[in-house]
Amino acid sequence: MDRQTGITATPNAPAGKIPQPSEPLLPDDQWGHRAWELLQKLRLRAPLIQCITNVVSMDLMANVLLAAGASPAMLSSIDEISDFTPGVDALCINIGTLSEDGLASMRAAAATAAAAGRPWVLDPVAVNASDFRMEACLGLLELRPAVIRGNASEILGLASARRIRNSKGVDSSHQSFDAVEAAKSLSRSSGAIVAVSGAVDYITDGHMVVGARNGVSMLQKITATGCAVTALIAAFISIEPLRALEATACALSIFGVAAELGIEMASGPASLRMHLIDSLDGLNEDVLVSKMNVFGVS
Amino acid sequence: MDRQTGITATPNAPAGKIPQPSEPLLPDDQWGHRAWELLQKLRLRAPLIQCITNVVSMDLMANVLLAAGASPAMLSSIDEISDFTPGVDALCINIGTLSEDGLASMRAAAATAAAAGRPWVLDPVAVNASDFRMEACLGLLELRPAVIRGNASEILGLASARRIRNSKGVDSSHQSFDAVEAAKSLSRSSGAIVAVSGAVDYITDGHMVVGARNGVSMLQKITATGCAVTALIAAFISIEPLRALEATACALSIFGVAAELGIEMASGPASLRMHLIDSLDGLNEDVLVSKMNVFGVS
Amino acid sequence: MDRQTGITATPNAPAGKIPQPSEPLLPDDQWGHRAWELLQKLRLRAPLIQCITNVVSMDLMANVLLAAGASPAMLSSIDEISDFTPGVDALCINIGTLSEDGLASMRAAAATAAAAGRPWVLDPVAVNASDFRMEACLGLLELRPAVIRGNASEILGLASARRIRNSKGVDSSHQSFDAVEAAKSLSRSSGAIVAVSGAVDYITDGHMVVGARNGVSMLQKITATGCAVTALIAAFISIEPLRALEATACALSIFGVAAELGIEMASGPASLRMHLIDSLDGLNEDVLVSKMNVFGVS
Repeated sequence: MDRQTGITATPNAPAGKIPQPSEPLLPDDQWGHRAWELLQKLRLRAPLIQCITNVVSMDLMANVLLAAGASPAMLSSIDEISDFTPGVDALCINIGTLSEDGLASMRAAAATAAAAGRPWVLDPVAVNASDFRMEACLGLLELRPAVIRGNASEILGLASARRIRNSKGVDSSHQSFDAVEAAKSLSRSSGAIVAVSGAVDYITDGHMVVGARNGVSMLQKITATGCAVTALIAAFISIEPLRALEATACALSIFGVAAELGIEMASGPASLRMHLIDSLDGLNEDVLVSKMNVFGVS
Repeated sequence: MDRQTGITATPNAPAGKIPQPSEPLLPDDQWGHRAWELLQKLRLRAPLIQCITNVVSMDLMANVLLAAGASPAMLSSIDEISDFTPGVDALCINIGTLSEDGLASMRAAAATAAAAGRPWVLDPVAVNASDFRMEACLGLLELRPAVIRGNASEILGLASARRIRNSKGVDSSHQSFDAVEAAKSLSRSSGAIVAVSGAVDYITDGHMVVGARNGVSMLQKITATGCAVTALIAAFISIEPLRALEATACALSIFGVAAELGIEMASGPASLRMHLIDSLDGLNEDVLVSKMNVFGVS
Repeated sequence: MDRQTGITATPNAPAGKIPQPSEPLLPDDQWGHRAWELLQKLRLRAPLIQCITNVVSMDLMANVLLAAGASPAMLSSIDEISDFTPGVDALCINIGTLSEDGLASMRAAAATAAAAGRPWVLDPVAVNASDFRMEACLGLLELRPAVIRGNASEILGLASARRIRNSKGVDSSHQSFDAVEAAKSLSRSSGAIVAVSGAVDYITDGHMVVGARNGVSMLQKITATGCAVTALIAAFISIEPLRALEATACALSIFGVAAELGIEMASGPASLRMHLIDSLDGLNEDVLVSKMNVFGVS
């Protein structure tokens, strides 16, 4: 099973069996150098990242990808997925403004990406808001995302619904899950790296857990920053698909570092948004290495 | 009849009969304190505001709501309205990029909000641009918005079309309406608070008229500022649904004050947009009270 | 044949026949004054520009049009084109996030604009990405755009596909085309002014070629700047439809000058975007004339 690309037909691992870690855990003091290495590769290769995303986030997502050095493509018509998606380096799917037509495109694109060996990431925005949304996400999980990123309530909701579905019954134990345990459970059952955003971000492959402490709280006052960081994850896993946990943690932290640099110049959320993008574009090694704050949890 | 929530099946009041004022008129010198009180409540409660809106405005609308302290949700699929809309605090409907699918969602959401006792506001963008748009708005009026906000030509057009429809014939007198008279007429026939944006904003419940003089002319050079202020009105009426005229006037003025603060730092429309959002986020009582300029007209 | 408005039913000129230049070539030192003259007229008339465009670009496109002095209208529903489009001053069609519904609206709007004598411009974004997209553009070309603007690979792809279609066979010679020759060929066969964006922009009527050197490379790090400049071209040709080559070159250069002014204040792509819009809004004659860098190539 290749958990990074999702190009396997292997049934999901039983929830009770803990798979081996997908990659060695980086020592805490190596994350800054690793992140810089990946960012340099990204700037050099300018990977093509297709985003099928919500309407609110498109502008920020495209501009964050460009500032990082990637090449965004916001094509989402079902009529062009078979021509276009096999040639992308990674795919980002975000259900923020989900519609039936949009969902059909997402399914087709995820399946096409998987068949072509391209990793794809899922952002289950507001997955608890409706049955339509939850069913859509559960269906997309079957198409094997390489990474799932959400906030705690999204990951809790999705992990819980997945467990209920797998056990064919109501499982009330999910109410006592904390988000990290939910993330590990979801990772094991889906085969995806799962990232939980928050004051500290947690990233897990179902076995190891890595924490990432970069970022500022004012990001919550800017729409679509979560969506944008998921797109950045897509860009980073396209560079290092076989180390998706590392790539995911680096993407989250680099975005957080850019926010930390941005807030030094900002007077509020709108100027933070601007300075964050400028800082991401101009990020250099010394600053990145000195500010990265990623650590192994378990 | 509850004109704030629109959860009544009472037929519209006959155009000739002037209803009683819906709420006592605040003394001119009390508006600043009232606006601050509402803004504090809004920041504390972080009401969930669903926006079914045009594509151009989504980013600005969401960021303005966040800066004010509200929680925006841009869900618009008809498949999730029955699950989601009953739980929102208010709903904002904006027809800027209207489509048939979008209109179906708007109708379903407005009806669902009304049935759940949630207030909703209507922004009849460019209602005079096509028959499709006018018919859509006239139909939405039947679902009892709590507030309608538009510019003078939108309110004139909508009031006139409404009168023609109600009188089952051509009524040429609408051509001599000024916008405030049109707003009063529309308010009386629809049961909604009606706000007319301009150099001075006028807000009426069909009986009283309040003027609000805050704002800067350069706002017209920024797309979607009108849409954003309508969303802000939705947030404010969710805080004070039984005093919708006051809440509407406060929302309009707070946005205007943020623009006045923003333009002191701005070099043009794009930097004004940024500084406006930052200023709204950081707005404090002293500045708000000293700058608010709202007054009873009649 | 009126190549500016496209309101002719004349069959396309045979590819082998070079039409006469559509307008006299301006001396190089006159472009600054000409651009200022057009910008002044635009600010005075505030032409109504309908944009049927991709979702990513709507905000930037509308704000750039407003900063230039035009009045943007982002209506795109097929239900209102017959009411609205005959009254616009120009139409901008951009296929960035093309869908079947969107394409139907584009076709209807382009046909309506042409029938009403309104010029329209085509931005064939990523035309090489799928057969769906290429077929859509080839079909739209039959509706006689006044101007086509794209980057080199888009113009090369479109010119090549057009030649293949016209010759009813495979034409391998297109591989040796450089973009300017492709632009001339496309212009001759379509009757449109063709602009190729790049470090130097080239604009041709199939006979003359004009170069425009304004702009900064960081524009490539901001999403939708190409889309925005195409909308600006629509605004400028609405002012001077009988001199569409001049109007196109002026629009491209004015946008480039605004970027040059913006970058002096910018720290990265997001602040460049802001300062570009502010600079466009505040542009004055002396600065424009001193910075314009347009020249006849042939």
